[in-house]
Amino acid sequence: MEKPIVSIVMGSDSDLPVMKEAIQILLEFGVNHEVLILSAHRSPDETSRFAKDALNRGIRVIVAAAGGAAHLAGVIASHFPLPVIGVPIKTSSLNGVDSLYSIVQMPPGIPVGTVGINAAKNAGLLAIQILAINSTDLLKKLIDYKKNMSQSVINKSNKLVKTGYKKYLSVVLKQK
Amino acid sequence: MEKPIVSIVMGSDSDLPVMKEAIQILLEFGVNHEVLILSAHRSPDETSRFAKDALNRGIRVIVAAAGGAAHLAGVIASHFPLPVIGVPIKTSSLNGVDSLYSIVQMPPGIPVGTVGINAAKNAGLLAIQILAINSTDLLKKLIDYKKNMSQSVINKSNKLVKTGYKKYLSVVLKQK
Amino acid sequence: MEKPIVSIVMGSDSDLPVMKEAIQILLEFGVNHEVLILSAHRSPDETSRFAKDALNRGIRVIVAAAGGAAHLAGVIASHFPLPVIGVPIKTSSLNGVDSLYSIVQMPPGIPVGTVGINAAKNAGLLAIQILAINSTDLLKKLIDYKKNMSQSVINKSNKLVKTGYKKYLSVVLKQK
Amino acid sequence: MEKPIVSIVMGSDSDLPVMKEAIQILLEFGVNHEVLILSAHRSPDETSRFAKDALNRGIRVIVAAAGGAAHLAGVIASHFPLPVIGVPIKTSSLNGVDSLYSIVQMPPGIPVGTVGINAAKNAGLLAIQILAINSTDLLKKLIDYKKNMSQSVINKSNKLVKTGYKKYLSVVLKQK
Amino acid sequence: MEKPIVSIVMGSDSDLPVMKEAIQILLEFGVNHEVLILSAHRSPDETSRFAKDALNRGIRVIVAAAGGAAHLAGVIASHFPLPVIGVPIKTSSLNGVDSLYSIVQMPPGIPVGTVGINAAKNAGLLAIQILAINSTDLLKKLIDYKKNMSQSVINKSNKLVKTGYKKYLSVVLKQK
Amino acid sequence: MEKPIVSIVMGSDSDLPVMKEAIQILLEFGVNHEVLILSAHRSPDETSRFAKDALNRGIRVIVAAAGGAAHLAGVIASHFPLPVIGVPIKTSSLNGVDSLYSIVQMPPGIPVGTVGINAAKNAGLLAIQILAINSTDLLKKLIDYKKNMSQSVINKSNKLVKTGYKKYLSVVLKQK
Amino acid sequence: MEKPIVSIVMGSDSDLPVMKEAIQILLEFGVNHEVLILSAHRSPDETSRFAKDALNRGIRVIVAAAGGAAHLAGVIASHFPLPVIGVPIKTSSLNGVDSLYSIVQMPPGIPVGTVGINAAKNAGLLAIQILAINSTDLLKKLIDYKKNMSQSVINKSNKLVKTGYKKYLSVVLKQK
Amino acid sequence: MEKPIVSIVMGSDSDLPVMKEAIQILLEFGVNHEVLILSAHRSPDETSRFAKDALNRGIRVIVAAAGGAAHLAGVIASHFPLPVIGVPIKTSSLNGVDSLYSIVQMPPGIPVGTVGINAAKNAGLLAIQILAINSTDLLKKLIDYKKNMSQSVINKSNKLVKTGYKKYLSVVLKQK
Repeated sequence: MEKPIVSIVMGSDSDLPVMKEAIQILLEFGVNHEVLILSAHRSPDETSRFAKDALNRGIRVIVAAAGGAAHLAGVIASHFPLPVIGVPIKTSSLNGVDSLYSIVQMPPGIPVGTVGINAAKNAGLLAIQILAINSTDLLKKLIDYKKNMSQSVINKSNKLVKTGYKKYLSVVLKQK
Repeated sequence: MEKPIVSIVMGSDSDLPVMKEAIQILLEFGVNHEVLILSAHRSPDETSRFAKDALNRGIRVIVAAAGGAAHLAGVIASHFPLPVIGVPIKTSSLNGVDSLYSIVQMPPGIPVGTVGINAAKNAGLLAIQILAINSTDLLKKLIDYKKNMSQSVINKSNKLVKTGYKKYLSVVLKQK
Repeated sequence: MEKPIVSIVMGSDSDLPVMKEAIQILLEFGVNHEVLILSAHRSPDETSRFAKDALNRGIRVIVAAAGGAAHLAGVIASHFPLPVIGVPIKTSSLNGVDSLYSIVQMPPGIPVGTVGINAAKNAGLLAIQILAINSTDLLKKLIDYKKNMSQSVINKSNKLVKTGYKKYLSVVLKQK
Repeated sequence: MEKPIVSIVMGSDSDLPVMKEAIQILLEFGVNHEVLILSAHRSPDETSRFAKDALNRGIRVIVAAAGGAAHLAGVIASHFPLPVIGVPIKTSSLNGVDSLYSIVQMPPGIPVGTVGINAAKNAGLLAIQILAINSTDLLKKLIDYKKNMSQSVINKSNKLVKTGYKKYLSVVLKQK
Repeated sequence: MEKPIVSIVMGSDSDLPVMKEAIQILLEFGVNHEVLILSAHRSPDETSRFAKDALNRGIRVIVAAAGGAAHLAGVIASHFPLPVIGVPIKTSSLNGVDSLYSIVQMPPGIPVGTVGINAAKNAGLLAIQILAINSTDLLKKLIDYKKNMSQSVINKSNKLVKTGYKKYLSVVLKQK
Repeated sequence: MEKPIVSIVMGSDSDLPVMKEAIQILLEFGVNHEVLILSAHRSPDETSRFAKDALNRGIRVIVAAAGGAAHLAGVIASHFPLPVIGVPIKTSSLNGVDSLYSIVQMPPGIPVGTVGINAAKNAGLLAIQILAINSTDLLKKLIDYKKNMSQSVINKSNKLVKTGYKKYLSVVLKQK
Repeated sequence: MEKPIVSIVMGSDSDLPVMKEAIQILLEFGVNHEVLILSAHRSPDETSRFAKDALNRGIRVIVAAAGGAAHLAGVIASHFPLPVIGVPIKTSSLNGVDSLYSIVQMPPGIPVGTVGINAAKNAGLLAIQILAINSTDLLKKLIDYKKNMSQSVINKSNKLVKTGYKKYLSVVLKQK
Repeated sequence: MEKPIVSIVMGSDSDLPVMKEAIQILLEFGVNHEVLILSAHRSPDETSRFAKDALNRGIRVIVAAAGGAAHLAGVIASHFPLPVIGVPIKTSSLNGVDSLYSIVQMPPGIPVGTVGINAAKNAGLLAIQILAINSTDLLKKLIDYKKNMSQSVINKSNKLVKTGYKKYLSVVLKQK
């Protein structure tokens, strides 16, 4: 197995149902990665060690997900000199606004590139876009990915026009 | 000089105009303390080392202030086993709601006792209350402090009743 | 039975399913405590009396939980000179933001050490941390507690790496 | 001097510049009133005593203003069986949203009739409306007050139409 | 049947499951009332007519409930010179914050005494408190009501102490 | 089939269950329309082309619905010189506040007439109102629509008065 | 002077400094209009009468601005069958979020096309876009307006590229 | 002059005082860049063309700043397959929460790496971190940058300890 270049870390295994989409998009694009559980608060030494060692282990982008007072991405960014992408996890009382503010509002000098609440797929894609700067293969795949997304929307629109809204709606409602 | 038992730390020296009230209340109550600048993000190693050494250095309560993605209190609490009090600093765009959520919404297992936005004086008082559990001297001072506060409100009310609202108002407006 | 030194009070018995976590952590650490229902608004005299008598009864820390216009912790703190810890209870319309603001935004002079919304376990732990300042037994237990938390995260991460995300995910989803 | 029937209380004398509008409208309508400073947190015993004695002293409506964790109105309402009107005071960090939530979100059984943030004049008017139920004099004055307000708006509109927006605007801008 | 003195109006019959608590408390206290559906937006003429006629029909307090851009209470208050109590109804997307702001933030001159989101019972009680100013019967009932609430909390607390939290909790959980 | 003059576009077919109410009201008023899926982000070229061609194709009003970072209405308004109506779709974490802000806060020069969160019916009605300026038929239908709404509220109120709140409530609860 | 077809109404003359931009854009496009002050709360009868008469007086679009519990647009829309555009005015405590929610969250059946907080110019432009459906002259002017905006941005960008950011910045800072 | 690899674009030249910090950090690290004004709404065709041509022109990262309904970053990301970094600009009424939500809450498939409100410096640093993956020179500079930041905090803390808080505070207050 090849060495990982992207590390996906999350503050709790309860974040895995959300973060699986980041894993799957990296698998889809064929990017080597690792998946770890690291808590800024419950396992701080492991988290620091991870963040300090990551560069030497060959990690180039870190995706960090956490909820509530979500410090994981920031703590990692305080050590790791390459890009850190933060995923605010939706929380039960504040719906993830707490996570979002805790991740995006970093002080000058220590950026975290933040995606939307629970937007694990976009975090994975942003990691791929970053790596695509030096990979014509990934770049090509990204361009194709965009085309497919576009075509998929067009197809749905055409189908909606053809079948009429009532029939299409009944299909949408069934899928829910 | 006696060894400090309370440590007041802040993420930036720009927090000092707010945090001076925590310092002053500790001075008023005669509690030995230290004042440090520590950034969870810009000086993470110093912050971890501080948090790990504090117990052995005799620190019993840590007051930590930060703004924005305010991780300082949480990072310290991840290492320090005794009470950590968090002070959310008011920020220019989100008015300190970001700081508040980043400090108060800690995960289970790692509490931070949070006071109001910019409420440095209350952070100092909470530290004193914690220490007062084992200090009849501090407890007595706290009880007196409460009495004085109460008397001060009563005096103001009496003065307002005596002078009438117009005269009292003109004094209040002058003080602004 | 030994005399309680921590008092856990809540505004309504409907808060008990949340507050049981504070009770259980105190039991786990062997801290004597009492559990009472007190309403700042519906039983104000009992609440004042409780807050005034608590010190003499030997109470050293009070954990107070309430939702909505959550005045319980503040009312108690207005009388009790030792630490008061506030637990904002999640509410049906404002999700506990009302409770949080009503508890944390105390005026200068009367601090309430506030934990996260519904964070009853952290309230209990903060009470234990406060008492641990003068109890080497509690301090030792807290240090062990931290180590166990850390090890638990490490174990989960190792298991995730070993089993792969798909298998681990299926286990997580079953637990929900 | 006649006995007061409305009591205007505020948590701090810094609220007086806002609350003067409640005083002035009561003066304008000729309603006997008193103005006191009472802090739910700093002078809790005086506040309770006030709230318990108010009925016997002849007080029929209490207007209570406070900011932040604004418990004054609620604490008074827990003792006083007649109407309590709450005025949320604008705060420096949360702009009075904290005050509003702390006042309006009272639990079932203990209502506080809340007006807008800093809306002291409306608090006074609501007190007058309450008293007008049994005072044909006050009712007549309220009906006239409404008519005058209405006429004032109509006059302004007519003037705007007559002078044109440019001239009218220059007058508005000068008044600022 | 005696003439109503309180009018409970709501913007939609979907508000009735919330507003039934206002009706029931008025029934409990024996206050004559009427219940109507009036929409500030869908039946504006009926609403204006209602608000203008209410005084002559003998109505002394109006309780108005609405959700979203909740104008009902304000529109009524623009015509009716006696107290209007507003009940912000919880909404599906903004949870009633929209309703609360639309009701409580009235301009100077036209107060609406606002209760908490969905707090229909408190709206009814506030109406009763207002009427109790001139009814020793209602005042007596209110004082008893307060005593009963207080006793009920005390009883629950005693029961919790007696049975222990585990047994009590199981009862609470069954009631949900 | 006649040429459409209103275009209803949505960012995803998952918006169709909400947007069907816009379609149905246009059908009810007999306004020719089309329904398309267009994503500002996933099919940007098709969206631009649509927005540029719409005028020449005879479209007079565009209703655009999207959720989250909801750019669809704004992107269309950047090209289309006639009215664009935006419908913010409710989202799972931020409840549609993100959609609302992304749609309503347009810069000077490029308005989007925004309706409430998920308020698809109102978007359709606003389109009809716009077209009614030059259609006495539509204007007449709108006036009738208003009358029917009004009458429907009056009928419900009458029924509530007649049957009493208990019986009416049981009917309301059954309909849920 | 020709008869107005757009009516610009505002709840208070203090809104005029904001609303002048709506007036000026209508003047720029040569659309006949009137400017009135109407308060939903302080002059309700005039407001209803205005809203009911507007259609017969030839008004085709109404722009209504108000702040706080901003009911003006909604009250007008309850009577007027043609388009109503709402402008939420920024408020001192809630910054216009109260105004926005009070205007945009209208119930089904009564739409208000809402623009951004203080976005008076966009309200005027939306009125023009609505009228442009049946005016090739206005449509042409709107298309030119868009072109000029676009060219203005391009010119600024070119100037920035030519002069460099430092020089350009100094010019921007001087203009503030 | 070498070809730019980073493009800094902003929706209005009024954003330049904020965005100058992104420019300056790129200059400090010696990264070739361009600075342009592009409006998603006012110059949509230029924006699309820019986003489509950027890759071929050699641009590798785009930093896009905008306020309010801030669509610029999202519109660019819909065309550009490499990383887009979004900077939410603080706004006058909603303080940049509108900008933040409009930028960060992108739909699945089109990520924008978002930094804090007005955090232009962090946007520049994130661009540098992305480029540093393939530049040992930039990586070395980033590591040094981190060290310097850390040392600067340590120096300030040492100075604070040495001079005492009073003297240090007077210096801080002078700098404001």
